[in-house]
This record gives sequence, C-alpha cells and structure tokens, in this order.
Amino acid sequence: MKYYNTQILIAIISNKLYMDEYLLYNHAMNESFSFELIAVQDKARAGIFHTPHGSINTPTFAPVGTQAAVKGVTPDQLANLNTQLLLANTYHLYLRPGDNLISELGGLHKFMGWNKPILTDSGGYQVFSLGDINQIDDNGVTFKSHIDGSIHTFTPEKAIQIQENLGADIIMCFDECPDPYQFEYNRSAMNRTHNWAERCKSAHTRSDQALFGIVQGGIFKDLRIESAKFINGLDFHGNAIGGLSVGEKKSEMLTILDIVPEFLSENKPRYLMGVGTPLDIVEGVARGIDLFDCVNPTRLARHKAAFTRFGRINITNKKYRSDKKPLVVDCDCYTCSNFSRAYLRHLVKANEILAPTLLSIHNLHILIDLADQLRRSIITGTFDDYRTNYHKNASNQGDSI
Amino acid sequence: MKYYNTQILIAIISNKLYMDEYLLYNHAMNESFSFELIAVQDKARAGIFHTPHGSINTPTFAPVGTQAAVKGVTPDQLANLNTQLLLANTYHLYLRPGDNLISELGGLHKFMGWNKPILTDSGGYQVFSLGDINQIDDNGVTFKSHIDGSIHTFTPEKAIQIQENLGADIIMCFDECPDPYQFEYNRSAMNRTHNWAERCKSAHTRSDQALFGIVQGGIFKDLRIESAKFINGLDFHGNAIGGLSVGEKKSEMLTILDIVPEFLSENKPRYLMGVGTPLDIVEGVARGIDLFDCVNPTRLARHKAAFTRFGRINITNKKYRSDKKPLVVDCDCYTCSNFSRAYLRHLVKANEILAPTLLSIHNLHILIDLADQLRRSIITGTFDDYRTNYHKNASNQGDSI
Repeated sequence: MKYYNTQILIAIISNKLYMDEYLLYNHAMNESFSFELIAVQDKARAGIFHTPHGSINTPTFAPVGTQAAVKGVTPDQLANLNTQLLLANTYHLYLRPGDNLISELGGLHKFMGWNKPILTDSGGYQVFSLGDINQIDDNGVTFKSHIDGSIHTFTPEKAIQIQENLGADIIMCFDECPDPYQFEYNRSAMNRTHNWAERCKSAHTRSDQALFGIVQGGIFKDLRIESAKFINGLDFHGNAIGGLSVGEKKSEMLTILDIVPEFLSENKPRYLMGVGTPLDIVEGVARGIDLFDCVNPTRLARHKAAFTRFGRINITNKKYRSDKKPLVVDCDCYTCSNFSRAYLRHLVKANEILAPTLLSIHNLHILIDLADQLRRSIITGTFDDYRTNYHKNASNQGDSI
Repeated sequence: MKYYNTQILIAIISNKLYMDEYLLYNHAMNESFSFELIAVQDKARAGIFHTPHGSINTPTFAPVGTQAAVKGVTPDQLANLNTQLLLANTYHLYLRPGDNLISELGGLHKFMGWNKPILTDSGGYQVFSLGDINQIDDNGVTFKSHIDGSIHTFTPEKAIQIQENLGADIIMCFDECPDPYQFEYNRSAMNRTHNWAERCKSAHTRSDQALFGIVQGGIFKDLRIESAKFINGLDFHGNAIGGLSVGEKKSEMLTILDIVPEFLSENKPRYLMGVGTPLDIVEGVARGIDLFDCVNPTRLARHKAAFTRFGRINITNKKYRSDKKPLVVDCDCYTCSNFSRAYLRHLVKANEILAPTLLSIHNLHILIDLADQLRRSIITGTFDDYRTNYHKNASNQGDSI
C-alpha cells in the first residue's frame, strides 16, 4: 500500500520543470549538428552531440537494429535502457523492404517507431562481408543479394542516396573494407575509400543529416595516420574508425586506437565502428572514442550468453540450475530486477523466445550503462580511477561468478 | 515541451489515494477466495474473484504461459495489457524445469516474475494430447515425456501435489479428455473424471489455492448435464467446462454452453477452458462464462496472423506492403499505437523475432480488452446492444480490412 508523500511529489515536479528548461536549452543548440565537449580527462572525453532528433550524451553505445528492429527488443524497452542512438544497416534495408518504401512511409524513424537519433552505415562493410561480390572497381561494387541472388551495384553516390531515403540523423561514407593484414590491398582500399569519401561528400544533399567519414588502413600505422589526416581534412560532421574488430588481435586494435584519434578533430565526435565488449569500451574511451556500436549484445543473447561487466557467462551452465541470483548481482536492468539465473536458464533450455529478449535487455544495459558510468567519471575527473578499478576487478573475475 | 499543470497533478494524486482506499477494501475481501457478482444481464455476469495475489475482474481472458513464460511477451508488457490472470501448464513445468525446483525457488509467481493471479491446469489435457500414452486406468495415466521419452505417471493426487509445488492461485482437477464424438468413451471418461475430482478434492491441502472442478461429457447433452450436476455438487471454489474447442463444430460447442452453466452455482466463477476467439468470448459471456484462456493470440502471432475484433488478417499479404495504418485502426495497444501494417509485414518477411512479440501484444489486447468491454456493458446494462452490434459489425467484416 503506497501513499505518496506530498513533499516528495513536489520535489519530483520541480525537478521535472528543471529538466524541461534544460531540454529547452538543448533544443536551441539543435539548429544544426554540433558537438560540445563537456569534460576531458587525458584523452577521454565527455560530450554532447546535437542532432535533429535529440542530443546524444557521449561516450555512448548504440544498439544495432539491422533490419530496422533490434532483435527481440521493442523501442519502448530500448528507451527504458536509456538508448540514445540506434544503428540500422543500409545494405539490409535497401534489399528489404527497400529504401524507397521506407521513404514513402515517412522515413526510418517513423517506420520503426523510434523518434530519437538513428545512424545508418553505408553498406560498405556488409557488401564486403555478406554479399557475393561480382566486381569491385573505382566506380563501386557489384554484388549478389544474400536474399534472392539478384544483382545490385553500390557506388558512393548510391550509398548516399539510399541513406538520404532512409533519413537517419547520422549517415556514413561508402568505404572498402579489406582483410586487415594485407598491406598492398589495404593501401589501395584506403585510397579508394578516400576517393569515395570525396564523392560521398559531393553527393550529400540533406542538411538534416550529418555525414561521417571513415578512416581505414588495416593494422598498418602509416596507412592509418595517412587515412586519418585525409579524412579529417575533408571536414565531415564526425569521423569514424572502420576496419577494426574484424579479426585482428586485440593488441593490434589498441595500437591503432593509440594513434588515430589524435589526428581527428577534437571538436567532432569520433565513432569506433562495430566495437564491442565492455573492455573495448573502457579502452576505446580511454583513447578518445565517443561512439560505439556492435551486434554483440543481441547476438550473444541469441547464443545464450550474458555479459557481465568484465566478461560473459553461458547461462545454460548446469551450475545456474537453481541459482536465485540475477545475472549480475547489483545490475538494475529489467532482467536482473525481476528474474533469476535459474529462470533464464529454464527459458533458454525450453527454447522460449523470451530468453533472447531478456538476455538482450541485460546485455545492452551493461554496455549502455558502462558508457554512461565512464561519462560520469570523466565529468567528475575520476576516469583514471574507474579504469584502474575496472582492470583490477576484471582480473579478479569481477561479477562473472 | 511538457509542463505539468499543478491542478491535474493534484487530481492524479487524489485519484491515486482513492485507488489505494479501494485496493485496501479489496484486500480485506481477500482473506479467502470469494466471488462477488457486480452485475448480471440475462445470463451474462460481471464479477470479482478475490485471490491471494489480487482480484480478478470478470469476465476476463487469461494469456497462456505454457512453460512459465508467455511466448515473446515480458511480464511488464503483460501488466501493461491489463492482464489479470496468467495460465501455466502443469505437464510442461513438471517435465521441465520440474515442480520441485520451482517450489525450491519460491513458487511460480516468484520464478516467472508475475505477482498477480496465476492458474495452472492439471496436466490432463496435455497428457492426452502431447504425451505418448502407455496406459490409462482408474488409478491414472502413464505416459512418455515429449521431451526425452522418459516414463511418468500422473494420478489425481500427483497432479494436485505438482500444482501445490507450483503454487498458483487457482489449480485444476485432473481429468480425462476424450474425443468429443464417442459416446461410450465420453461416458466412461466422465465417470473417471468424477472419481478423480473427488480424489483431487481429498488430496488438496493448501488453503491459499482455489481448486476448480472440470465438467466433461463431449458433445452429449445428457452427459454434460450429469457431469455439471456432479461436479457442482462437490462444492469446488469454481467450476470449469473442459473438452470443448477440441475439434467439435462451433454450433455444437454453443449448444453445450447453452445448457451447462445453469447447473453450475451462480456464486462461483465459471471457466471455459482453452477458448478462444473474439466471437467465442462474446458468446461465452452471453451464456454465463467468467474466465477464458487460449494459446490462440500468441500462437497465431507466431504464424503471422493478427486478430481484428471480428476475425483475423494475415499480415504477410502483399496488400499491406505500404499500408500506413495500424493493424486495427482504433486499437490503442502498444503495437497499434506505434507501428504500421507495412512495418509489421516487413518484420515478418525479414524473420525478425520482434514480429511475434508485437503481434502477440496486439492479439492479447484484442481479447483482454474485448472481455473488459463486455464487463462494462454488463455493468451499464448494455450487453445486449453490445452483442447485437458486435454481430452486425462482424457480418460487415468490421475492422478486418
């Protein structure tokens, strides 16, 4: 039986009014895209990126809704997770249901019922990883659809046109994504990516969409520096680092992240594409990254794995059979607030489709909440301590048992 | 930009206090199970069934969570649908994860994160429809598990013991469910069901669980009347009608529903098991039924079908490709408030697991909301008009296009 205390209610109301003022201030900043740095600690940054669909507090992690849906998670649930930015895939949406249909239906935000910022990738990565490629040349890439085998060509201009039809707040340049270890291929792919970046910039017409460039160059420092300088020189709304977390060693990724950000403008957001894990986010933020996305949280959930803050657990393990604890003991996500490991294990063993939903909610929370905690630590000047403690807990297995 | 009006807030607070008083009143009524009739119009009844986990306003429809989960729908989403009662299946939970484990973990409510009323069936229907039956005799049924082929025996005493371990608010007598058309088999199955009902009543020990009897007798009026009189005479907390919607014609089901309820006590809830569709609910309520359950809303959702109030649509139909309308134009469920038919069709075509979730939310809403509207019409004395209009709209295809 709950009786609300009047004083508490008034405090809630006052706070609400205060928040509205704050949002009003933010809205005024939204006239065009802009990135404000709120606090910096060494290389780590806390910022705000203003977009037509609202402001994004950085660093943050963006869930992936490949086909205009985060697998098993509703927009309502995503909003409850404090999701600030969603990613959708141009390659998939172009093939099905088609960017023209989405445009006709009012754009991606309306189509998928998500009124906050959206980012679309350019289709580059998917064309190279999913498509059956017929031809690559300076003009673009011709490939077979993974759905029905039909033949399609993506050029830089086409990738921008599709993304303008989709209507995300942040769109990406079309890039070539090679195996990270082949030097010659990486040099030519980088040069082609630079040429395509210039063409994407020329093709870009919608002022309500921010266009980001992408740095390539595999695991090669010289190429990465050359690429960062070139892409940064084109003065995009933001800069991304692509071609990482694609099979190279973790140490190789970190080496590249040690050097690339310093060549990218301080006053623009930096986006590390397709990364990753809790540890990747801590180390990416330490190196000056502001935005992250990855399919990991939802894909692992469909494969019965749950993130802890420091690693992961396989919930089908017999030791969880009668375990009354939540996935992570002090986690305040919906899943951990309501369900035991024993129940989640049962759902997975019984093939209930609620299992990937509840595990996805938890996994997404771990990454979104971690990025938010890193942001707070930067603002309060305690990022170094946070990072040191993080590594100490991780090496003690942290909350993974 | 929203500024809350103080007067509105005070109104909300007052209403909240009023609701708390009301709940306090209801709580006092909950000391034991009781059923209050609020309004009656001809045979149709609006009532309140008080249980240890809260009151159930009747008539109502109960979603089915076979394996302690409604497929693809979280408890939070179920609560938002105004779900008052959930059903779970004894047969499934006994086999996996086991009723002893659920008991050890604090019972079904805690296990599945649902703190409102739950009903478990007795396993009778599943043993006869899913199990590979080895032997049936007066003692009970021996069957092979559909999961691993292991051998198990359910007796009336065992069915009660399992349900007491699970700990639902409403539990059911173990019954034999024959083909509805075979007279001799139905007579012997009915007699066995009566004997088992007496044994279930003797075996039942937990005073915080209401035990319901089940009327059987196939499509045969004489058997149904005999069964209704016998079961009613055992003075259970409520009475159920089983063995309908199992393959007989709709007209045959309605004929049985025309006669059975009058032999069941007016001051106890009447539960029509495994039914059904919007039309079934209207016609069941018209004949004095208070509780319904069915897997239809979630099963149809997994088969790409959506309920309208009067029928159903297959969302994969090409005519919905660019349809901006919601599934049902004036439906206020989460799905219809946020997503177009075109988007839902895309999700289904793209095999997104969000599709069954969103379709299930809509389908459950249609049945729960319909039962609530019927309740209101009974209370306001307009049930006959509601029913007449319903049939008129249904024959005009209503909202199905």
